[in-house]
Amino acid sequence: MRPNTFGHLLSLTTFGESHGPAMGAVIDGFPAGVSVDVARDLQPHLDRRRPGQSSLTTSRSEGDEANILSGVFEGKTIGSPIAVLVWNKNARSEDYDPNYYRAGHADRTWEEKYGHRDYRGGGRASGRETLCRVIGGSFARLLLPKEASIVAFTRQIGEHEAREVPDSLTIADVDRHPTRCPDPAVAREITAVLKNCKKEGDSRGGVIELWVDNIPAGLGNPVFAKMKNRLASAFMSVGAVVGVGLGDAPAASEARGQKFHTGIAGSGDDAGISPASQGIQGGITNGRRICLRVYFKPASTVGSMAKKGRHDPCIVPRAVPVIEAMAALVLADHWLARRLDRHIES
Amino acid sequence: MRPNTFGHLLSLTTFGESHGPAMGAVIDGFPAGVSVDVARDLQPHLDRRRPGQSSLTTSRSEGDEANILSGVFEGKTIGSPIAVLVWNKNARSEDYDPNYYRAGHADRTWEEKYGHRDYRGGGRASGRETLCRVIGGSFARLLLPKEASIVAFTRQIGEHEAREVPDSLTIADVDRHPTRCPDPAVAREITAVLKNCKKEGDSRGGVIELWVDNIPAGLGNPVFAKMKNRLASAFMSVGAVVGVGLGDAPAASEARGQKFHTGIAGSGDDAGISPASQGIQGGITNGRRICLRVYFKPASTVGSMAKKGRHDPCIVPRAVPVIEAMAALVLADHWLARRLDRHIES
Amino acid sequence: MRPNTFGHLLSLTTFGESHGPAMGAVIDGFPAGVSVDVARDLQPHLDRRRPGQSSLTTSRSEGDEANILSGVFEGKTIGSPIAVLVWNKNARSEDYDPNYYRAGHADRTWEEKYGHRDYRGGGRASGRETLCRVIGGSFARLLLPKEASIVAFTRQIGEHEAREVPDSLTIADVDRHPTRCPDPAVAREITAVLKNCKKEGDSRGGVIELWVDNIPAGLGNPVFAKMKNRLASAFMSVGAVVGVGLGDAPAASEARGQKFHTGIAGSGDDAGISPASQGIQGGITNGRRICLRVYFKPASTVGSMAKKGRHDPCIVPRAVPVIEAMAALVLADHWLARRLDRHIES
Amino acid sequence: MRPNTFGHLLSLTTFGESHGPAMGAVIDGFPAGVSVDVARDLQPHLDRRRPGQSSLTTSRSEGDEANILSGVFEGKTIGSPIAVLVWNKNARSEDYDPNYYRAGHADRTWEEKYGHRDYRGGGRASGRETLCRVIGGSFARLLLPKEASIVAFTRQIGEHEAREVPDSLTIADVDRHPTRCPDPAVAREITAVLKNCKKEGDSRGGVIELWVDNIPAGLGNPVFAKMKNRLASAFMSVGAVVGVGLGDAPAASEARGQKFHTGIAGSGDDAGISPASQGIQGGITNGRRICLRVYFKPASTVGSMAKKGRHDPCIVPRAVPVIEAMAALVLADHWLARRLDRHIES
Repeated sequence: MRPNTFGHLLSLTTFGESHGPAMGAVIDGFPAGVSVDVARDLQPHLDRRRPGQSSLTTSRSEGDEANILSGVFEGKTIGSPIAVLVWNKNARSEDYDPNYYRAGHADRTWEEKYGHRDYRGGGRASGRETLCRVIGGSFARLLLPKEASIVAFTRQIGEHEAREVPDSLTIADVDRHPTRCPDPAVAREITAVLKNCKKEGDSRGGVIELWVDNIPAGLGNPVFAKMKNRLASAFMSVGAVVGVGLGDAPAASEARGQKFHTGIAGSGDDAGISPASQGIQGGITNGRRICLRVYFKPASTVGSMAKKGRHDPCIVPRAVPVIEAMAALVLADHWLARRLDRHIES
Repeated sequence: MRPNTFGHLLSLTTFGESHGPAMGAVIDGFPAGVSVDVARDLQPHLDRRRPGQSSLTTSRSEGDEANILSGVFEGKTIGSPIAVLVWNKNARSEDYDPNYYRAGHADRTWEEKYGHRDYRGGGRASGRETLCRVIGGSFARLLLPKEASIVAFTRQIGEHEAREVPDSLTIADVDRHPTRCPDPAVAREITAVLKNCKKEGDSRGGVIELWVDNIPAGLGNPVFAKMKNRLASAFMSVGAVVGVGLGDAPAASEARGQKFHTGIAGSGDDAGISPASQGIQGGITNGRRICLRVYFKPASTVGSMAKKGRHDPCIVPRAVPVIEAMAALVLADHWLARRLDRHIES
Repeated sequence: MRPNTFGHLLSLTTFGESHGPAMGAVIDGFPAGVSVDVARDLQPHLDRRRPGQSSLTTSRSEGDEANILSGVFEGKTIGSPIAVLVWNKNARSEDYDPNYYRAGHADRTWEEKYGHRDYRGGGRASGRETLCRVIGGSFARLLLPKEASIVAFTRQIGEHEAREVPDSLTIADVDRHPTRCPDPAVAREITAVLKNCKKEGDSRGGVIELWVDNIPAGLGNPVFAKMKNRLASAFMSVGAVVGVGLGDAPAASEARGQKFHTGIAGSGDDAGISPASQGIQGGITNGRRICLRVYFKPASTVGSMAKKGRHDPCIVPRAVPVIEAMAALVLADHWLARRLDRHIES
Repeated sequence: MRPNTFGHLLSLTTFGESHGPAMGAVIDGFPAGVSVDVARDLQPHLDRRRPGQSSLTTSRSEGDEANILSGVFEGKTIGSPIAVLVWNKNARSEDYDPNYYRAGHADRTWEEKYGHRDYRGGGRASGRETLCRVIGGSFARLLLPKEASIVAFTRQIGEHEAREVPDSLTIADVDRHPTRCPDPAVAREITAVLKNCKKEGDSRGGVIELWVDNIPAGLGNPVFAKMKNRLASAFMSVGAVVGVGLGDAPAASEARGQKFHTGIAGSGDDAGISPASQGIQGGITNGRRICLRVYFKPASTVGSMAKKGRHDPCIVPRAVPVIEAMAALVLADHWLARRLDRHIES
């Protein structure tokens, strides 16, 4: 079953508990000859996920410095498995009580399943595990064509939804505001909401939207390794995620077919392309923008424990690089798979 | 990559094109000693998915009779792979044009990917492929505890949403109406909408809701084989599905944490159980009802081709057994995996 | 675990019991655009494995006709799973006794494992299962470069070992004699031995040698998917195989290093190539001939049951195409994997 | 393909190059609740494989101290992935020349495959990688029934073959002599041969024999995950291994069937058990001793480089714990798989 491994041709295996000595990622199937620079390619993504990056997040302070243990030699990958370690430094297990199951967490289900659990702060179920995904995603990005763009942003927090979003976005655009909401007015509203949450021990969920641009057609393998179900699995494996949709899925489910499927079908460049496809048709990319929404429930730690400050009132802003990382892993996996589609004589 | 195989310990491999000679399913990892009766255990589920079952569906007529070729001997499974074949009988490929890409279908992406495609009606991308999933799911159900109940139903078609739904439902309850909507008033509204669609060459999508009851706690394997991401992958691999959520995911994403996570956490039977968990916590079942919603886009064939009658104006009612089947496959896989959680000395 | 599936990128799943209605093979991951002709590409290999092909084999008579059910359209593969069915016709289950465990067969271990078994002639443990491997191997050959040559032959039966073997061999060369021993004098000795076995109810094992020529360097993936361990696993999965070696492994294990590793190492085309490598170095092909030996125990059915004639006195000649097929599957899998070794920018 | 992962239900992923900072092992699928003590359960096996353990081995000196980074909490496994790190300390890369391909090593094939390689001493192809397998095997042993015994020993080095071997052996028995040959007279001969090799820059191969006792019947899954082909794959993935056989495979291939298959077949405890089975029948264990032989070619480094002393003249004695470890991994994997064979109602 290999439950701690994600991916087929390119695979990520993660290990480590939030309060153990270290978190680790092992990436297998990574082609040789790719230049890798930790400071340029990894650390910026880890820093975007890092706790304590703004006043809106947890006060747990971790440098989250990436150490490459294998797979890279003289600045290039060599075809062997890439292993990256991040030491845990600011773990404070005294905050946790072994005899108490936190509601909304995995505490009880984990204990019922395994009999024995690491009660120090979530163990594997902690959001800290996602830093290994960011490592994996950072490497995955290096495989994709340079022009490919994978950008996620905060579409909505609580009932505050971004409406004025530019047609194209870079990571820098998104990071301009700590909420990672690219609509400045809504970003300000969200800031006020989250500051209030911290004060009151309340929390919020929200919606992250992902845009993938300049990705070639043909990625995705029918029928159980479609681009859409691989992405859905990738995102739903993240702790707080409760839903995934292609574009605005609830709206699509209500639409009339004749309107939804409007568009030129007969000839030319767009022949057979569905305008409402969100970049994926029959499970395979069609070369247009891939757009998905990922729904997060409100953060689980509320009340007095939340007021201590070592928990995020809303995980959405820090989850943006995690969603991008999971998308990059799926895309790079299928980018490799693309090489296997057709016969090559020799 | 094995894109035509789903599942880990219990796996389903499907083959067959919609206009080829046959559709097939191979199930591996199925334990020995399970009594199987085609008429009792398989055919009823296939009949629920079968085209032509009511005036609301396509007029393509297929008996969809299951033939077991291996894995069952003297009425019981023997531990070897179970193979089941269904012959295609009413394929009419003359309806299709090799030089035409149907918008909203996989025609163009498939051709760009593989260069060469079976242009006779969708090939593997056809909804006909889902009958193999129903076969797999029928076997998967046999592994689960007898008291387990997996029931899906039409929650919404177009903008018509069921509101008056009983607290518990059987398959028979759901099948009482061809729309598979258990709210009789809404079912009548939907019938009118779909009849009108057939006349006008229009189509609709909708929402299927899945309830899994009486399933044990402890199913699901962190961190990439969680119950929720496995189910999301299972459902999103179905052609017309555009979104998946735990319960009403958009509503959850808007809720306030203190309200969403309300509930007794300290002690007793419910200690650590989240009332809003939808049966899955930390990716693992907690023994309560699992509830998911699956969003379908409107059926792709609209206009003059739709009026010929060999396409469904709305796939949702016939997709109900498919969603149940995919859920059964995931649940049975984890039901087996449960045996591996803890050490057994000998 | 998927115990009935072999291979990674190119995978073969087999089903069917020897006395059930049919044997089947499903091949996934096969690239699109490959021309396939059953009469030219499949049937000849099946005929080489077929029972009743000479007076030296079992008298069970099966046409073993291949029926393609999916994956091929208008004579070319389309990227979807290839399914091939062979109906069982001459099964005579009355020959078998449910209350009797045949020694040397899987009867007892299978029953202890699964509780319930198909007692009609071996079920999945029957050599008949290998016809599905031959189907898989026939397709695998189509992926490899045209100049590649995969030829196996009878090196030894009982104590009769071929000594005068030409430097190069084609399948036609090997098939010139029913024993598939390319040393004519030894072939005659073997014929006499096997005819005597049939008369006396005795049996023999032997050694098959495999030569793979004109295969590119670079096939094989360290450290657990090396060419040598993948081939070893492929061959040892065949019922009667009890050993596998690179070249003459027992002799290699006795050699002195300075003699064994003699050869030019410094410069030129052969730099770093080990003359004693048997074509595989560090688990990766080096472009030279791959040579392996596969050891078979004597056929298990001896005594009065053997005299009935529906069992082979020696499985080695009919196993030659099976060994070739398993080699082709491994080689084609790694031939595809080769495309993933290095970075391709776009 | 995940070439650095071995195993299905219980899987071992290894990383690290011989001259990189560390070697690592990640074990997934390990059940919760197993007591683990590094000093008792891991270090002894690592010490048996460690370089520099006797005058017969390389002088590279490594403490090979195991550090558990995750998966164990308060002395017991918790169901999450187990990660173990061993730092490399005595790597001396100045001994290696990037412009020189060592014959008999993976240098050239690796470079042809990947374009870019770690030329410092073999990288992943180094025997040092096997310490990760020993870590994996040490954990695997903890899953097996206490009475199970996995013992390998030096059967032969060069032409010196152990003849006087007791009927049963413990690890302590085998370790009594640095050659790990349990026939004292032959052990002395081997010592003389290997000392001479070190002086002359020569090397030897040999044969390791593996005995597995007190293992239950029913382990092994037909048809591609048989116990025999899984073991063959496990052993052949070790660098210097060139052959594998059930018992004495060449002798079995020469035997007459009526003699080879002699034994009571009809009734009683032994009904259907083949006396010559070597513990595996139809690919499934039959409860008797499993016996395999593993053939090693002579160590590749000969001549002047060998005289420097940082290479073993014969890898066989140090490979004994590696063979045991690979066997333990396969056995534990199937030990877990055994739980899935039959239907359990609830």
